Amino acid sequence: MKIIIVGGVAGGASAAARARRLSEDAEIIMFERGPYVSFANCGLPYHIGGDIQQRDKLLLQTPESFLARFNVDVRVMNEVISIDRQAKTIKVRNVLDGREYAESYDFLLLSPGAAPIVPPIPGIDNSLTHSLRNIPDMDRIIDVIKNNKPNHATVVGGGFIGLEMMESLHQLGIHTSLIEMADQVMTPVDKEMAGFVHSEIRSKDVDLRLGVALKEVTQLDDSHLKLTLSNGEDLTTGLLIMAIGVKPEIRLAKDAGIDIGELGGIVVNAQMQTNDPSIYAVGDAIEDQDFVTGNPGLVPLAGPANRQGRMAADNMFGRNESYQGTQGTAICKIFDLAVASVGKNEKQLQREQMAYEKVYVHTTSHASYYPGAETVSLKLLFSPSTGKILGAQAVGKDGIDKRIDVLAVAQRAGMTVEQLQHLELTYAPPYGSAKDVINQAAFVANNIIKGDSTPIHFNEIDSLTSDQVLLDVRNPGELENGSIPGAVNIPVDQLRQRMDELPRGKEIVVYCQVGLRGNVAYRQLVNNGYKARNLIGGYRTYIHANK
Amino acid sequence: MKIIIVGGVAGGASAAARARRLSEDAEIIMFERGPYVSFANCGLPYHIGGDIQQRDKLLLQTPESFLARFNVDVRVMNEVISIDRQAKTIKVRNVLDGREYAESYDFLLLSPGAAPIVPPIPGIDNSLTHSLRNIPDMDRIIDVIKNNKPNHATVVGGGFIGLEMMESLHQLGIHTSLIEMADQVMTPVDKEMAGFVHSEIRSKDVDLRLGVALKEVTQLDDSHLKLTLSNGEDLTTGLLIMAIGVKPEIRLAKDAGIDIGELGGIVVNAQMQTNDPSIYAVGDAIEDQDFVTGNPGLVPLAGPANRQGRMAADNMFGRNESYQGTQGTAICKIFDLAVASVGKNEKQLQREQMAYEKVYVHTTSHASYYPGAETVSLKLLFSPSTGKILGAQAVGKDGIDKRIDVLAVAQRAGMTVEQLQHLELTYAPPYGSAKDVINQAAFVANNIIKGDSTPIHFNEIDSLTSDQVLLDVRNPGELENGSIPGAVNIPVDQLRQRMDELPRGKEIVVYCQVGLRGNVAYRQLVNNGYKARNLIGGYRTYIHANK
Repeated sequence: MKIIIVGGVAGGASAAARARRLSEDAEIIMFERGPYVSFANCGLPYHIGGDIQQRDKLLLQTPESFLARFNVDVRVMNEVISIDRQAKTIKVRNVLDGREYAESYDFLLLSPGAAPIVPPIPGIDNSLTHSLRNIPDMDRIIDVIKNNKPNHATVVGGGFIGLEMMESLHQLGIHTSLIEMADQVMTPVDKEMAGFVHSEIRSKDVDLRLGVALKEVTQLDDSHLKLTLSNGEDLTTGLLIMAIGVKPEIRLAKDAGIDIGELGGIVVNAQMQTNDPSIYAVGDAIEDQDFVTGNPGLVPLAGPANRQGRMAADNMFGRNESYQGTQGTAICKIFDLAVASVGKNEKQLQREQMAYEKVYVHTTSHASYYPGAETVSLKLLFSPSTGKILGAQAVGKDGIDKRIDVLAVAQRAGMTVEQLQHLELTYAPPYGSAKDVINQAAFVANNIIKGDSTPIHFNEIDSLTSDQVLLDVRNPGELENGSIPGAVNIPVDQLRQRMDELPRGKEIVVYCQVGLRGNVAYRQLVNNGYKARNLIGGYRTYIHANK
Repeated sequence: MKIIIVGGVAGGASAAARARRLSEDAEIIMFERGPYVSFANCGLPYHIGGDIQQRDKLLLQTPESFLARFNVDVRVMNEVISIDRQAKTIKVRNVLDGREYAESYDFLLLSPGAAPIVPPIPGIDNSLTHSLRNIPDMDRIIDVIKNNKPNHATVVGGGFIGLEMMESLHQLGIHTSLIEMADQVMTPVDKEMAGFVHSEIRSKDVDLRLGVALKEVTQLDDSHLKLTLSNGEDLTTGLLIMAIGVKPEIRLAKDAGIDIGELGGIVVNAQMQTNDPSIYAVGDAIEDQDFVTGNPGLVPLAGPANRQGRMAADNMFGRNESYQGTQGTAICKIFDLAVASVGKNEKQLQREQMAYEKVYVHTTSHASYYPGAETVSLKLLFSPSTGKILGAQAVGKDGIDKRIDVLAVAQRAGMTVEQLQHLELTYAPPYGSAKDVINQAAFVANNIIKGDSTPIHFNEIDSLTSDQVLLDVRNPGELENGSIPGAVNIPVDQLRQRMDELPRGKEIVVYCQVGLRGNVAYRQLVNNGYKARNLIGGYRTYIHANK
């Protein structure tokens, strides 16, 4: 058997290694048009910023190491330029000498990845503007920084790479502007959760500009660009990083008549097979099946790519492994903060017209009396009818990866928020709480499902009617750091005594800092015959929605 | 409705708060024979050691705060001494003045907890010997330390409290001996995993003595004890902490004719009801249903107690909440190490005569090229027929809680190791790997289930026969830190060239450092017609089994 693999990172390398473990006889050739195979693309921003000091650490494998261990013929600087499906051959061009040659295949694996989107902005093609996909890109950015020593840099795009580059540049002492067209960074989470990220970014003196697009670039001199923005403002900068997103590399597949989906990715079945049964495709170039909706999606993440590559190799050897859909579990470090998500966010659920309910919980990453506890802010989206987990988002300085991992497993297992209540998670004061944030979120969600709680959400607070009374049940001292205009203050511990201060005929909208005492007050009110609602996630959720 | 709660920590306090949220009308009285209600019992060792500096932080609620927020009548220093089930009354003794009085109940909740086991060792009743269950115990230990300034202390028992006390005493600069009768500390994990803990303890110059029991205590003077040990050795010490375990407090229940199980705990149904439908029981005093075996178990942990308390209150109000069994998820910090487990360990599975297979994986807590990555050592036990997760254990300096939490959720959801392969966990270099340790463990387990790998385990290595050849596929430099006697060394990357050095007729037993390269070599051998087995978890597992 002869297997040809196009693209040597993540999916391609995983497939090659797996194929060799399954067979000593197979001939395996891996083509990579760049100079490096199997490098740590997720580590690139961290080498620029200095967290990863040695460049070598990013080079996970070399053609020599791949040959020695897996007997794979790795050909870097060799670009596959066309596929002849009839003949089952590919045409390859040696990038160094331009020589072209053909190779036959029994199975072909396409793992070409996705390329940075560079929009057609006037003046964008200049020596100070770069995107970051591979080692040569990284080297070019480092060169600009070393040679020009810019005191200002600009990142366009507030996604993973944009945020990581912002942090790296800031870490190098370069004053940095982050330009994002949307009203929030990190689109995998919803705006009120991104609010925590906006606060963190601004607290580091990064110039964050939301709702602003780059319109034009003018090169002033060898080391300065003038950026013209959509709001009419100008910005002079010494380095421009374009990180507005990526698009699947489909040219090779498309030219060969491989099916391309509506989202612009290669279409595969659950076995990672394209419409040509001899051609498999994996990774950032394909359309994955979304775990929640079942619809196709573009999810350029390393985890799925790795597992898909392994699976494609299995299936070439006659196994019948099926990909189980992509949840899009993701995390990003932004200075001291982690922000992570899994499944669908609220914007997507609205777009898909899927019914959902949501809860917010803010509680400590471990026992609050043990040093180092940090607030975990968690948003959980679930089906109000079945209780199934639709998505989750978390932000904080500690334990964020853990909480989203727990919910990623629960979602994949088809668990309901009812079942989440029973989760038995590790607890000792340095690591967790006897009632973990996950259990707490599940309690709040179940209270809603069972009718024990009538929720109100942050976005409804500013449109209360005269039939509603806003009740702040925090202690007076807490109000000094802000409160919602028009609220009456009765601390929860005084509510039983002072309940008759509240009008009987109106709906009492209760809030506290995070929603816990609000629920205690809500229950008192309802059990005393009042009509009431509790602000889920409390003032903390409300206030971050506008940050 | 009138609810009486016996015991004000964890389960009792959770039940009281939940009951009040469900009803404003219920009369709720909570009895606690000690001076404190709802204190942070898990934090006690950390206050002794100084991590938690303020004693106040351990006092989560006071009778006053409980009254104000939940209108619960908390009576500390009041001990419930008997139950009249016929009359539905209890007799209470005021501990301060000896006065006795009765209270009626509609529902009674028993949450008395478990008491430290103090074995009948001669001389053990002295002013320098203490166990640690509550605030007064803690205060007494602190008094001994402050007044006597011991330069040596001894902890008997290598469970959670014993290990935490050992660390706290060591942190105070007190030279500490830890005496454990078994051949390992931390019985929730198996011995080869405890080996990592033994290394950590010894690296801190703690005097760890395994397989040794305390036989006799002799008080030498006001500040010194002589300890006589089962191995004939003596030890002079200034403070003796007894932490060999706890037993359910069942006196009150037993005297009232409440069913007690074979393990010595109160018997309850899934609704947390005893054989008297008006009497519920929760927490450390009861026998939980084990999630894996379905058999009763004693699991003195805070998480289950809290959820059981909430559930008991729900059921008193006519809801029908069922407890879903206890997995025993637990974690302990031992200096820089965390050790955690969920489900059944290998010793228990053998005792229960349940069929199991196991895998070991040692890989980094996050991308190895990003700073701060630490090795996660994971043991996964699963059913060889169904693939269901039976148990898991992990040890390491980073990300241990996360991995066991992930597996705790997967186990509760009934997932198989096949399904674990597909888990999509958060990945960015500071937080994880594209193939997380969980995915890797699942790959190894599935290779075994599918027959792609024939495992051999560490405990079989020392009894190889002359029909087997031990092959070390690590690089020569790695062997300098130790290797298994009698092994032939051929580095994995040279194996294809040098395979004919290996005898055809014998079984090749391959090992590397952690099992990964071993698998690559194993596959090469098998695909070349050799009979082979791979040491799961490699040399790292083998060597820690004897530490």
